[in-house]
Amino acid sequence: MKPNFEKLNGLIPAVIQDYKTNKVLMVGFMNKQAYQKTLATKRVYYFSRTRKKLWKKGEQSGHIQKVEQILVDCDQDCLILKVAVDAGQCHVGYQSCFYRVLEKGSDKELKFIAEKIYDPKEVYKQQHYE
Amino acid sequence: MKPNFEKLNGLIPAVIQDYKTNKVLMVGFMNKQAYQKTLATKRVYYFSRTRKKLWKKGEQSGHIQKVEQILVDCDQDCLILKVAVDAGQCHVGYQSCFYRVLEKGSDKELKFIAEKIYDPKEVYKQQHYE
Repeated sequence: MKPNFEKLNGLIPAVIQDYKTNKVLMVGFMNKQAYQKTLATKRVYYFSRTRKKLWKKGEQSGHIQKVEQILVDCDQDCLILKVAVDAGQCHVGYQSCFYRVLEKGSDKELKFIAEKIYDPKEVYKQQHYE
Repeated sequence: MKPNFEKLNGLIPAVIQDYKTNKVLMVGFMNKQAYQKTLATKRVYYFSRTRKKLWKKGEQSGHIQKVEQILVDCDQDCLILKVAVDAGQCHVGYQSCFYRVLEKGSDKELKFIAEKIYDPKEVYKQQHYE
């Protein structure tokens, strides 16, 4: 399998799903190096679009993502990574980055559908969170 | 809510999840127009990166995606759309585009984990599938 990194300037999206609950925890982007390091180590690595560098999920917070299964889509330009995680995958303090819904399908108002499960200030000592 | 379309050349990724089973069916990309049409019609629209145009999921196949809920991530640059669908969301004939796994976590071999549920040749009359 050769993922197609060309459609998105060297990146592919990676959907991170809790392998036990199928909850989508986050979506990140991988370049070729992040993809290869993830395969080699069974821990999820990303390419940060803002910092322009490789990073390992959990490198600051300790909340690593242990790869249990990798699925690839029809066009081989997107992955699902089913992962084992501890609590708190979102840098804001929630289990999932998707903690809000568009109320009544409109973007006028966002409704919170989750509670924070940790305090990010205690976890991220550096200014740059993950 | 103002989704941030700037990080990805005017696009944001949209993860499509079956609202009943939480199975991830596909991942597409939306530009601002696709996002607004999706909100207005409650049917999912995408921007095709290869054809450089807006398209409605199901415009050829009839396999539309009816929006039940929209979740937004912490950075407001990615959406989950929980949708009601009939069978067959992947243009190749599977329910989900993610019908293969990397066997033993290596990309040397892909293992099929689903069966086709329709014949795409009977569904897509034009050469360009969705």
